[in-house]
Amino acid sequence: MREVLAEAAFQLFLDRGFEQTTVDDIVARAGVGRRSFFRYFPSKEDAVFPDHERCLADMTAFLEEADGGDPVGTVADAARLVLRMYAANPEFSVQRYRLTREVPGLRTYELSVVRRYERTLAGYLRERFEGERDGALRAEVIAASVVAAHNNGLRSWLRSGGEGDPYAAVDHALGMVRGVWSGADQGAALPAAEDEVVVMVARKGAPMWQVVQRIESALGQG
Amino acid sequence: MREVLAEAAFQLFLDRGFEQTTVDDIVARAGVGRRSFFRYFPSKEDAVFPDHERCLADMTAFLEEADGGDPVGTVADAARLVLRMYAANPEFSVQRYRLTREVPGLRTYELSVVRRYERTLAGYLRERFEGERDGALRAEVIAASVVAAHNNGLRSWLRSGGEGDPYAAVDHALGMVRGVWSGADQGAALPAAEDEVVVMVARKGAPMWQVVQRIESALGQG
Repeated sequence: MREVLAEAAFQLFLDRGFEQTTVDDIVARAGVGRRSFFRYFPSKEDAVFPDHERCLADMTAFLEEADGGDPVGTVADAARLVLRMYAANPEFSVQRYRLTREVPGLRTYELSVVRRYERTLAGYLRERFEGERDGALRAEVIAASVVAAHNNGLRSWLRSGGEGDPYAAVDHALGMVRGVWSGADQGAALPAAEDEVVVMVARKGAPMWQVVQRIESALGQG
Repeated sequence: MREVLAEAAFQLFLDRGFEQTTVDDIVARAGVGRRSFFRYFPSKEDAVFPDHERCLADMTAFLEEADGGDPVGTVADAARLVLRMYAANPEFSVQRYRLTREVPGLRTYELSVVRRYERTLAGYLRERFEGERDGALRAEVIAASVVAAHNNGLRSWLRSGGEGDPYAAVDHALGMVRGVWSGADQGAALPAAEDEVVVMVARKGAPMWQVVQRIESALGQG
């Protein structure tokens, strides 16, 4: 029933436009009563993004079960659950991307959803960084970075019409953030032998992000 | 007139609640006609945030006039313009922060505004990184990081009731992002003498962000 309603709604939004479609139009097409619609979706906007609630729940569960490895890698993996949802239905995802770009109300709705993912990731990192200096600050900045990187890769794929491997661009983007931030968990990064040193030689003025990538390989965190 | 309307609106929102206040209530209190309200504000939400449009214009102008120094430092300074707006009127900013937390519609509106700041910063960085590998990706991740750091510092100050120096927490947070990302502009970071090297020694397993801060001092980018 939920899927039938979402499909009917989406087809009408594509055919007539989002604003021009009423809930009455949707339930008429789906052949159900008006109350059925609101049992499943609080608003018309929710019917456009029917899988985000489940994805948020999946993300929360994933983070609760995470085994305590590199926290930045963990939230990057959690973000991939969002991509998995989009990648499960490329045609729908691409059509919805185009529809969302045209309807300000849907863009606003999407911003709220993105913010909820970001808060979920930040909440996990805040716990991991608890008691550390600037822990909450780093948690929020890293969560924002992960979300921005994920969305950059996702949008590339959506703009291309959903062609090719959706994971390639997203994993590349998330890899960059991991490269910059991995090891941000002070506790987890403490070495077995504290007096081991790494000597790193770089060209003066080399871009910081390149230097970081090289150090990472040297430290074996890459 | 614009200020009179914004003040009348805000006082009513505090007294009666945002949802319970109509545009008719606002114009009655301000002693003007209904059309005057919509000449200045497209919606009730806009009257709660009367200065963001001007701040966005200031930010755009600031970035257009920027002299081409460190791009991450430039967007961090641009973000401080938002803080300057909040800091100009601490009591109003704190009351609005509390009101916004209670009204979902205002939170959504604020998300849209924050996103516009983020896009403005990202647009500047995209131009600065044009032609570079992963330029657009880095632009978006850095813009998101700067906004997250700024908002972390701003929220600390707002939650404290607007006591103390609002710039302290924000500059500390922005400093962390600059530390991680400065030198991300490949072109600008090229040294005069390309064969100069820096040797850096770190304890193996040291947290990446600490390593980055030390390299920065060594490279003179701190």
